[in-house]
Amino acid sequence: MRAPIVTLTTDFGLSDHYVGSMKGVILRICPGTPIIDISHEVTPYAIAEGAYLIAQAYLTFPRGSVHVVVVDPGVGSERRPILMEAAGQYFIAPDNGVLGMIIAREKHKVRAISNSRYFHHPVSQTFHGRDIFAPAGGHLASGVRSSSFGKIIADYVRPSFAEPRQTGPKSWAGEILKVDHFGNIVTNFRAADFPRFEEITIGVTNVGRLVRSYAESPSGELVAIAGSSGYWEVSLNQGSAADRIGCRAGDACHIRV
Amino acid sequence: MRAPIVTLTTDFGLSDHYVGSMKGVILRICPGTPIIDISHEVTPYAIAEGAYLIAQAYLTFPRGSVHVVVVDPGVGSERRPILMEAAGQYFIAPDNGVLGMIIAREKHKVRAISNSRYFHHPVSQTFHGRDIFAPAGGHLASGVRSSSFGKIIADYVRPSFAEPRQTGPKSWAGEILKVDHFGNIVTNFRAADFPRFEEITIGVTNVGRLVRSYAESPSGELVAIAGSSGYWEVSLNQGSAADRIGCRAGDACHIRV
Amino acid sequence: MRAPIVTLTTDFGLSDHYVGSMKGVILRICPGTPIIDISHEVTPYAIAEGAYLIAQAYLTFPRGSVHVVVVDPGVGSERRPILMEAAGQYFIAPDNGVLGMIIAREKHKVRAISNSRYFHHPVSQTFHGRDIFAPAGGHLASGVRSSSFGKIIADYVRPSFAEPRQTGPKSWAGEILKVDHFGNIVTNFRAADFPRFEEITIGVTNVGRLVRSYAESPSGELVAIAGSSGYWEVSLNQGSAADRIGCRAGDACHIRV
Repeated sequence: MRAPIVTLTTDFGLSDHYVGSMKGVILRICPGTPIIDISHEVTPYAIAEGAYLIAQAYLTFPRGSVHVVVVDPGVGSERRPILMEAAGQYFIAPDNGVLGMIIAREKHKVRAISNSRYFHHPVSQTFHGRDIFAPAGGHLASGVRSSSFGKIIADYVRPSFAEPRQTGPKSWAGEILKVDHFGNIVTNFRAADFPRFEEITIGVTNVGRLVRSYAESPSGELVAIAGSSGYWEVSLNQGSAADRIGCRAGDACHIRV
Repeated sequence: MRAPIVTLTTDFGLSDHYVGSMKGVILRICPGTPIIDISHEVTPYAIAEGAYLIAQAYLTFPRGSVHVVVVDPGVGSERRPILMEAAGQYFIAPDNGVLGMIIAREKHKVRAISNSRYFHHPVSQTFHGRDIFAPAGGHLASGVRSSSFGKIIADYVRPSFAEPRQTGPKSWAGEILKVDHFGNIVTNFRAADFPRFEEITIGVTNVGRLVRSYAESPSGELVAIAGSSGYWEVSLNQGSAADRIGCRAGDACHIRV
Repeated sequence: MRAPIVTLTTDFGLSDHYVGSMKGVILRICPGTPIIDISHEVTPYAIAEGAYLIAQAYLTFPRGSVHVVVVDPGVGSERRPILMEAAGQYFIAPDNGVLGMIIAREKHKVRAISNSRYFHHPVSQTFHGRDIFAPAGGHLASGVRSSSFGKIIADYVRPSFAEPRQTGPKSWAGEILKVDHFGNIVTNFRAADFPRFEEITIGVTNVGRLVRSYAESPSGELVAIAGSSGYWEVSLNQGSAADRIGCRAGDACHIRV
């Protein structure tokens, strides 16, 4: 039987040995498992950004995939490692809200990972990616049952960034989930929830023109597109909307319908 | 039978989920296929740079490999996705010239990809990497015949950057294909076509010293090397020739023999 | 039998085709071998940094793994390619000290790679990653015996950065091995050799507070942690210690016990 895919999403960057060390741990436990990088360039400690990335990425992966997500400002503190089952896939992460956008969307079951038999020893105080999260992913991929890792819990962290907040009869406040590599601004206004609108506002900039593709965008004009993410995105055809407006992930945005 | 290798070359960067999502699509269609990144750091929308990278990279891959190339400023417009067979390998890309350097060099057969049965549905207007190019790569790797994707076409885009243009009895105008990570400047003057020369000129800088290796370069002096790419490259031993001269991909260069 | 893992550590960056070309060479020689990137973002020509990365990374990999390390300022000169066996694993690199931290720590056997039968021809003067080191890795992974590559040598390069130097009855001079992605400063003072100390000094900054984890660090204060690397690291909780102090890899540091 083929080993399931293990994916990695971290804020470790690519200039250190950290990601490579995690892969060594996984492959020593589960030889032959395919390991796929989602991204290692999450802004350091940016839980909301990591939450967005994994909540986008798992959608294209097959059932049984194991997603290891390490954006972990609290490494070495009392925050728990967790293992979540949702959408027929597995998610291993610190209990800090980084799985929150999937929790908001899918039926899920969450366990605290407590069985130190599945840790890489000695467990350091600074690199749980290598010592706790990667080995859990490797053991899960190699066939260890999820129930062996620890007990089901109900008091896991539920973050605030996952959903917009209504501020008036026709207005909601949200936040920027991500500025992508091209400068597209991904809001947390789902196109399914806001099929049309009058205006999205970021800082002092109002965007009222809705288009279906970059190719439809008038040159040099900011537009809103129901992007591939499922959220409304503010874009500039062949330019950076985020540079134009001067904004970044975590900034506020507003929608008026 | 072993699944063929699928490679990816894009301008998507590594900070988003985009590349990971493409890999999920490919692995869901063709489990176990090895996926190799060529680069995801093509300058956004820089077709010539993507064309150079894939035209270098395929040379070391085995027959049957499937190369997915997504540098696609026209996503959502009418430009067609294409599937090319050349050198016993497969290339999937938008029809915008990004395969042009291979077209200029190898016998080839080009098809328009039109069979929506091999798309990832619903097809977005902004992420054909995930919805059209990756699934085509996955299906091809899993054994679907190339003829199933669409009809052979002859009117695909042939780009201008692939070849130098003669400007006098002993002079040609070319362009910089790439500034590499070390600051080496790759021109589009093939060493096989120009086995020797008097001078390469970039901006106001003339380079007349030819050496065989960096180790032969006098310290601090710009030199020309017939690089591993097969093109003349302008280099500075343990320094950046491009920073010294102040130039970048797409800039003009000249050769006098 | 499963092919062993091949890992890659280079200063090639990710914006060129160089890493992809190496992988093509390896997979053409040894189809199906898993290839794992340790890092390609070693500072160009920084042998000590590459030495640190591979000396950390191999620790988590299984016996039989093949590590290809290309930080090679001397490409095209007379420096030899070498193949080292240590800790049940294989290391392929230029003979310039980049394997020095493993040499200092493990029993080892070093060969000069001289058998051109295992090269990728024609061998360029500028890209031995593709033409010498990657093919050696591929052939080794595919089952060629290490003795086939060349003779055992004793006069390989032993670098100076691997060990601190005693400067007084209670003081040693060392150097910064790496500034990691988070700004943690990794010294070359092993926690096992210096289980406690009075002070680590970098530039004009003294650090005397030892903690066990980032979570124990007082906000805004520099601390020393016996990091996951096994070395003393100077850190700032959720901030960059290196930016605070203004230092980088290769800078001097001192310890007083």
